[in-house]
Amino acid sequence: MTGEYQSAKPVAAVVGLGSMGMGMAISLLRRGWDIAGCDVSADAVARLAEAGGRPVRTPAEASKGADVVLCVVVNAAQTEAVLFGDGGAFETMAPRSVFVSCATMAPIDAKRLAARLGEKDVFYLDAPISGGAAKAADGNLTVMASGAPPAFERAGALLEAIAGKVYRLGDAVGVGASVKMINQHLAGIHIAAACEAVTLACKLGLDLPTVYEVITASAGNSWMFENRVPHILQGDYTPLSSVEIFVKDLGILQDMARVERYPTPIAAAALQMYLATSGAGMGRDDDASVARTYAALSGAVLPSVTAPNSTKAG
Amino acid sequence: MTGEYQSAKPVAAVVGLGSMGMGMAISLLRRGWDIAGCDVSADAVARLAEAGGRPVRTPAEASKGADVVLCVVVNAAQTEAVLFGDGGAFETMAPRSVFVSCATMAPIDAKRLAARLGEKDVFYLDAPISGGAAKAADGNLTVMASGAPPAFERAGALLEAIAGKVYRLGDAVGVGASVKMINQHLAGIHIAAACEAVTLACKLGLDLPTVYEVITASAGNSWMFENRVPHILQGDYTPLSSVEIFVKDLGILQDMARVERYPTPIAAAALQMYLATSGAGMGRDDDASVARTYAALSGAVLPSVTAPNSTKAG
Repeated sequence: MTGEYQSAKPVAAVVGLGSMGMGMAISLLRRGWDIAGCDVSADAVARLAEAGGRPVRTPAEASKGADVVLCVVVNAAQTEAVLFGDGGAFETMAPRSVFVSCATMAPIDAKRLAARLGEKDVFYLDAPISGGAAKAADGNLTVMASGAPPAFERAGALLEAIAGKVYRLGDAVGVGASVKMINQHLAGIHIAAACEAVTLACKLGLDLPTVYEVITASAGNSWMFENRVPHILQGDYTPLSSVEIFVKDLGILQDMARVERYPTPIAAAALQMYLATSGAGMGRDDDASVARTYAALSGAVLPSVTAPNSTKAG
Repeated sequence: MTGEYQSAKPVAAVVGLGSMGMGMAISLLRRGWDIAGCDVSADAVARLAEAGGRPVRTPAEASKGADVVLCVVVNAAQTEAVLFGDGGAFETMAPRSVFVSCATMAPIDAKRLAARLGEKDVFYLDAPISGGAAKAADGNLTVMASGAPPAFERAGALLEAIAGKVYRLGDAVGVGASVKMINQHLAGIHIAAACEAVTLACKLGLDLPTVYEVITASAGNSWMFENRVPHILQGDYTPLSSVEIFVKDLGILQDMARVERYPTPIAAAALQMYLATSGAGMGRDDDASVARTYAALSGAVLPSVTAPNSTKAG
């Protein structure tokens, strides 16, 4: 199933079959790609096989014969392990194939990984994604990509299959990662600010659905306010995106800003609230759980769970 | 011109003829109202007269014979002076007339002022506004109003003349003020966060117009990011809304949250940045000047002024 495999279809590997990677793999299969996929979870690999993909055990197996290796893991450390760990993709990737890296990471890490791939003439496309699991499954993600022109050329058809919009941000690896960090910087603050303001509104005794209606029509609105506050109004903290994602992403931001000698007092304050929320045991709950931390710190009584299968307020 | 004045038109007083009050007065004149107006600035009063209003010297003169007194000043202290200072409106307001208060203030101040007016059977409408000078001039503001039903009844025609949207938030004075504070809480954080993130993008060497394009189409967007970041891209800090507005409004928020025993670490961090920007001499410049503080603290070099008549970067 590996070295001798031949196909008329375009061939890609997908490494990392979480909610994002699985959605992207299925989008590719639907558009007629031949996809080899692997994940640390055997269940995820089995689901890929059911959807028509080729299940393999390691990134090295997945990458053998692939023109493009799509890596959809959580951070720089996991991306490094996918490439250079035991059974890593680097072993089997052919010269002039492309490694498309979707994890959110500091630009310095993206540059370091790209340099190591360059030693064997493998291209690195710095391609963080935005849009969530539903858009991944629809092939409608936003990709913020940078890399050498041949990397874009070879990965072009794959990007078109997974994304509604590809921002081509230049030739230098690191630019995609940087723009994604600026987005996460704002998104992380906006979620925590929404939690801070809505829980204060609750403590003041305001009618929260009315506050939501007024704010979403006013200058205080944000994409995240509009998207996350309904979770608080419904008292439903079933994770769509977890608290740990912003513990990670604002953590990367802080590290990056420290290297740059750039102060980020607002992002730093927001990170403390994600840390407190995770520390209190809600790390795997929805990121709107930061509101529950403000409630615990102030005595505000937020709406409680209404749906029978929701996560309990902790 | 005062006690004996008679008119078939609806009569209102407008106290405070800054960019917001003047716009509202002119909207009312355009719709056939008889408007008496006063301001501490003689120039502003003269401009009202040119537009067809009746210039008067004091709130007491303006309020004599008016069914509705519209007060468009900056804060609770100014509102209190308009009502109860020398030549204050309270002297001449008739029982069952309505005082419409637009200043952003803590709900506790709105309640206190309403209670004093109640001693003479004058109604208080707690009616903060949102929308900026252009919408004030168009009669297209958003009003977040609460107060007794007769206050709404008597002020209804006036509210219709100045606003595109009136949120009627209940019978209790203080609710309008509270909802406005929640909006300012978010708006103040979002402007400072936009400045923090965009100046970091600048320090990282990213192309700022591209960052603006990507973020406004992504989950990191906010109403304020979209509205204020163009000022930074153009290097133009001519004040549309000044740094001092958020020194004031986040200051009110902090006072209010302290009374409630409610922690607001993110708003507190944002307030420090407005204070630093004002302290460095930019208090009267556009609130996007917070970006210039981040630049001064980090060595980032933001776009400089391009228009010949703009404020100089500090």
